[in-house]
Amino acid sequence: MRIDCIPQIGETPGHDLAGKTAIVMDVLRATSNIVTALANGASSVLPVETVAQAKQAAGEGDVLAGERQCRRIPGFDLGNSPLEYTEEVVGGRRIVMTTTNGTRGLQKASRAAVVMAGSLLNAEACAQAALQCNRDIVLLCAGTKDVFALEDGLCAGLIAMELRRISRGEVQLSDFAAAMAGAYASAAEGLEDAMMSCESGLRLSKLGFNEDVKYCAQRHSHAVVPVLSGGEMRPFSGRHQLVRSRG
Amino acid sequence: MRIDCIPQIGETPGHDLAGKTAIVMDVLRATSNIVTALANGASSVLPVETVAQAKQAAGEGDVLAGERQCRRIPGFDLGNSPLEYTEEVVGGRRIVMTTTNGTRGLQKASRAAVVMAGSLLNAEACAQAALQCNRDIVLLCAGTKDVFALEDGLCAGLIAMELRRISRGEVQLSDFAAAMAGAYASAAEGLEDAMMSCESGLRLSKLGFNEDVKYCAQRHSHAVVPVLSGGEMRPFSGRHQLVRSRG
Repeated sequence: MRIDCIPQIGETPGHDLAGKTAIVMDVLRATSNIVTALANGASSVLPVETVAQAKQAAGEGDVLAGERQCRRIPGFDLGNSPLEYTEEVVGGRRIVMTTTNGTRGLQKASRAAVVMAGSLLNAEACAQAALQCNRDIVLLCAGTKDVFALEDGLCAGLIAMELRRISRGEVQLSDFAAAMAGAYASAAEGLEDAMMSCESGLRLSKLGFNEDVKYCAQRHSHAVVPVLSGGEMRPFSGRHQLVRSRG
Repeated sequence: MRIDCIPQIGETPGHDLAGKTAIVMDVLRATSNIVTALANGASSVLPVETVAQAKQAAGEGDVLAGERQCRRIPGFDLGNSPLEYTEEVVGGRRIVMTTTNGTRGLQKASRAAVVMAGSLLNAEACAQAALQCNRDIVLLCAGTKDVFALEDGLCAGLIAMELRRISRGEVQLSDFAAAMAGAYASAAEGLEDAMMSCESGLRLSKLGFNEDVKYCAQRHSHAVVPVLSGGEMRPFSGRHQLVRSRG
């Protein structure tokens, strides 16, 4: 099984995703939010590109969520802070979500056979689920404005290491995936510091979102793996779920 | 001073090189060869794109060098193995060189104010020279066929670390440069192994070029910094050389 890694969304068109499992990472904060929402009982997350699409898609009982320039969109129920996605707010409800980059990443990945949302929070669970799917894996780092973002690369590196550990070395890392695994290994002991001092971390800190960065820097705290099924992200429950949903 | 890093040549057009120092790295093997050639007394290296251009440019006394698919071009004096670039062969002579990727990298970088050839061999010297130039720095990893190559990323990481060390932290690494520094730090103790097991290393090993990979994995063994001046790579002798050549 081959593990490849794409540095940022803008490079996705050059990669062949057909037949593969894509794990999309927008660690600060879209995919961390999707993981948190499903972990806290949201029934599903519908990622959409524009604010207008979000408003149009949201039905009764749905939660409207999203950001532009890191801030909550006026009139929306939730912004892009995972700390807002509590059980009380999201439990049993569908979240209609639009973010600058994360939802775009999920859409770019939709050519893949399986699309998962990865984060540091669910890194181990993601690796396990992806190995179950038994397909080549592409780690898709969302990045920011078509530029590589360190937090996504570190997450890709952690998932690559988990894939190697769980499979007992039976996966083959591409050069870029190997570089990200090395970058993660170097940062592992001071991960929160690395997340706070990278470009996205600094930007969020300036805006007062320090606690979000700290939250998103936690590893393996969640077992849920959001997977795209019928246009929505739902908890992965096993390989058969995907076969059915694509049948 | 800001340190940016480009993962592979194909992404160069998206980056602004104007006014900056670009350090081009094609560690296996083009830039390692250019460093070796100048260290062994070649008067200059003229990088050209095609075999026809190389033949046309080569005058009496010049050495014709280059590869296609890792092999020496028929009729050429030298291939792409640094071990061939001995003092006896290259001393006092101009090398006209064409390689699949390295010379292309130098040409893509030519929009920069200063263009240097970097390798593990001259990493420290490169960092010192680039700091002398007192411009923002772009580390340009050549890669292979528009895909990131680990050996170039590790070299970029080492140079980024040297820039930080020599400047006493007075440089600001982009997220990608920081990731490469982390990847290098993880690989530092087993660098030769990392170079042998990455994609280029494996390909060269299969072709019988193990010794080339080991040679190119040496760090800080050479003090020469090839710099583009009048279309040719010559040893960097200080900032004034560049001002004159561009005046």
